[in-house]
Amino acid sequence: MSDFTIVGLCGSLRRGSFNMAALRAAADLVPEGAVIEIAGIGDIPLYDDDVRATGMPEPVLTLAARVAAADAVLIATPEYNYSIPGVLKNTIDWLSRCDPQPFKGKPVAIMGASPGMIGTARAQYDLRKVFVFLDAHVLNKPEIMIGGAAQKFDGGGVLVDPVTRQFIGQQIIALRDWARRLQG
Amino acid sequence: MSDFTIVGLCGSLRRGSFNMAALRAAADLVPEGAVIEIAGIGDIPLYDDDVRATGMPEPVLTLAARVAAADAVLIATPEYNYSIPGVLKNTIDWLSRCDPQPFKGKPVAIMGASPGMIGTARAQYDLRKVFVFLDAHVLNKPEIMIGGAAQKFDGGGVLVDPVTRQFIGQQIIALRDWARRLQG
Amino acid sequence: MSDFTIVGLCGSLRRGSFNMAALRAAADLVPEGAVIEIAGIGDIPLYDDDVRATGMPEPVLTLAARVAAADAVLIATPEYNYSIPGVLKNTIDWLSRCDPQPFKGKPVAIMGASPGMIGTARAQYDLRKVFVFLDAHVLNKPEIMIGGAAQKFDGGGVLVDPVTRQFIGQQIIALRDWARRLQG
Amino acid sequence: MSDFTIVGLCGSLRRGSFNMAALRAAADLVPEGAVIEIAGIGDIPLYDDDVRATGMPEPVLTLAARVAAADAVLIATPEYNYSIPGVLKNTIDWLSRCDPQPFKGKPVAIMGASPGMIGTARAQYDLRKVFVFLDAHVLNKPEIMIGGAAQKFDGGGVLVDPVTRQFIGQQIIALRDWARRLQG
Repeated sequence: MSDFTIVGLCGSLRRGSFNMAALRAAADLVPEGAVIEIAGIGDIPLYDDDVRATGMPEPVLTLAARVAAADAVLIATPEYNYSIPGVLKNTIDWLSRCDPQPFKGKPVAIMGASPGMIGTARAQYDLRKVFVFLDAHVLNKPEIMIGGAAQKFDGGGVLVDPVTRQFIGQQIIALRDWARRLQG
Repeated sequence: MSDFTIVGLCGSLRRGSFNMAALRAAADLVPEGAVIEIAGIGDIPLYDDDVRATGMPEPVLTLAARVAAADAVLIATPEYNYSIPGVLKNTIDWLSRCDPQPFKGKPVAIMGASPGMIGTARAQYDLRKVFVFLDAHVLNKPEIMIGGAAQKFDGGGVLVDPVTRQFIGQQIIALRDWARRLQG
Repeated sequence: MSDFTIVGLCGSLRRGSFNMAALRAAADLVPEGAVIEIAGIGDIPLYDDDVRATGMPEPVLTLAARVAAADAVLIATPEYNYSIPGVLKNTIDWLSRCDPQPFKGKPVAIMGASPGMIGTARAQYDLRKVFVFLDAHVLNKPEIMIGGAAQKFDGGGVLVDPVTRQFIGQQIIALRDWARRLQG
Repeated sequence: MSDFTIVGLCGSLRRGSFNMAALRAAADLVPEGAVIEIAGIGDIPLYDDDVRATGMPEPVLTLAARVAAADAVLIATPEYNYSIPGVLKNTIDWLSRCDPQPFKGKPVAIMGASPGMIGTARAQYDLRKVFVFLDAHVLNKPEIMIGGAAQKFDGGGVLVDPVTRQFIGQQIIALRDWARRLQG
C-alpha cells in the first residue's frame, strides 16, 4: 500500500521520449511507501476559453482530479525553443482554470532531459515562474538537468546512467520530505 | 497594392479575445503600403514529434509558408499563468521544425493585452527568449502592454482608447522601419 | 520582546527611496511579536573574488550574521533596467559566499515599488531565480508590486495609500505563517 | 589602423578571471581592421541615485564615452547565483543614466565562461532582457557558453581549447557583420 502518491507529467508526446523514460526510472526509484503514477496529456485539447466557459473537457477534469488527489507532482520535460513545450503549458493552462485549482499548495519537483549539454534549464525556470502564480511549492534542490541524454538511456528507453539514477532517487526523497515538511 | 506584408498571430483562441481585437486595430492602423494579414492558429494540432517525423500536418505547412513569405510578424498575446499561452507556444514549436524555419531572420513585434495592470510583461519576455533561439529579430521598442483591457476595448471588440491606438500605430511603423533597416 | 525577527533589505541606496519607505511601513505593520530590522547595504564593497579569498570584508560578515540569525528576510527593491539593481545583487553575491550561506533554508518575501505601472515584476522574478540557487524559500503570495509610487507615498516618505498598507500587512503575516509552516 | 572598435567588458573583477581570459582571446581573434579594447569596471562605485543627481562619477563618464564611441560592445561574464554579477549590473545601471545613454542602438555580443556545465545561460538571458530596455541590439548567434572552463584555459589564462577559439572568432565576425547590417 502506498501512502505517498506522486503524479508524473511528461512534457513530450513522443513515444520514445527521454523524459517519459526518466519518469519511468523515477517510478522505479521511489522509496518504500511512495508511488509515481504517470498521467498522459495527449488527450487534452488546445485551450480555448470559449470551450472552458461552456464546460471543462472530460480529460481535463480527470487529470485535475488526479493532480488534486496526489501528494505531490513530478514534471519531466524537454525544452522546446528555449522554453516550456506548448503541449505541457497547454495542459497547465487548462488545469489552472479548474476549481479547485489543483496545483495550489501542491509540492512539485521538476526534471528535464535533453540531447544537448545545457539540458533544459531555460524551460525549468519558466516553469518555476508559472508555479509562483499557481501557488505550488516547487522543490529547490536537487535540480535535475540530464544533458547528453542519448548516452544515458539505452535503446529501449531505460535510464542506464548510474549517476543520473542516483540523482533522481535523491530528488524523489527530497520531494517526499518537502511535502511532509509543508504538511507539518 | 501592398509592398509590406505582416502576418499577425494571436495567442488566444477566444472569439472575443482582446488580443485579436488589438490585431484588428493594428490592421486598421498600418501606414500606406503595408498590410496585416491575421492567421488563425486554432487548427494546429498538439505538437507530437512522432507525427512530425511522418510528415508535417497541412495547417502547419500552410502557416509556415505564410510566415516565411511575410516581411514581418506581429504577435498579440495574452499571458496565461505568467508565461506564453500553451496554444501559441505549441504553434511556434511546430513552425520551428519546418524547413526553412520561417522565423529565421524575420523581424517580429510583440504586443499584449490583459484585463489586469501588469499586462503581459512576463509572457512577452519569455517570447523574446524563444526568438533568440529561432534567430528572429524582435523589435525592442515601443513595447506594448495593454493593461486594463476591459476599459480600452468596447463591447464589439473595437479598440477605442486613443492612446493605445497611437502606440500601436507607432509600433507598426517601427516594425516596418526595423525590417527595412535589416534588409539594407 | 520579539519572537519573530525579519531582516529588511532595500535594493536602493537613495535617501528618499520608495522601497526604503515601504520597508519602514512594513516595520510599522508587523503583527504583535514580530519585528523588522532594516539592514543597510551601502557599506558592502564591489564583489571581488580575490578579496574574498583573502578574507571576507567586515560589513559582509556582519550582514551575513544578521541574516543568518533572522527568522525571515524581507526584500524591497526597485527595478533597474528590467532586472535586479546591481547594488542589491552585489550584496547577495557576497552573502552567497559566506559560511554558513545565510539564505539557505530561509523564508523570504519580496516587494517592490516603482514610479511606473509595471512595478518591479521583472526584477522580482529574477530575484526568485537567484533564491532557487541559494535554497531560500520565497513566499509565493501575496506578491507586492507597488506601481505609481509617487502617488502612494507622501513627501516625507510615508506610505499613505491604505490599500498598499493592507497588502503589506498581509504579506508580513503570510511570511510569518510560511516560516512557521517550514519549521514544523 | 582599425575601422571597427569593440569595447570589451568583463563581469568579474578576479585577476585570474576566465571571462577576462576569454576577452583577451577574443582580442587576438578579431578579423583584420577590427580591434577589441578591454575596459575595466573595478573603479565604478556602487550606484547611488543621490550621487548621480549631484554629478556622474568620473569613471562612469569615461566608460560611457568609450562605449558611446565604440562600434560594438562585447560582454564576457560569469554567472553569479543564477543571474548577472552585481558588479557588472551595477556598471550597466550607471551607464544607463548617462546622456546619451551609450547602449542605445549599439550592437552587443555576449559570451560567458564558467567552471560548471550549464555555463552562464541564466546570466546571459537576464542580460538580454536588460538590453531590451536599453535599446541595444544583441546578436542572436552564435551564443557562447564556455562550460568546464578549467579545462579550456591554461594556468596562464590563455584559452587553449581550439573549438572554443573558433566559436569566439565566429562570434566576433558575426558581431561586425551585424553592426554593418544595422548601419545600412
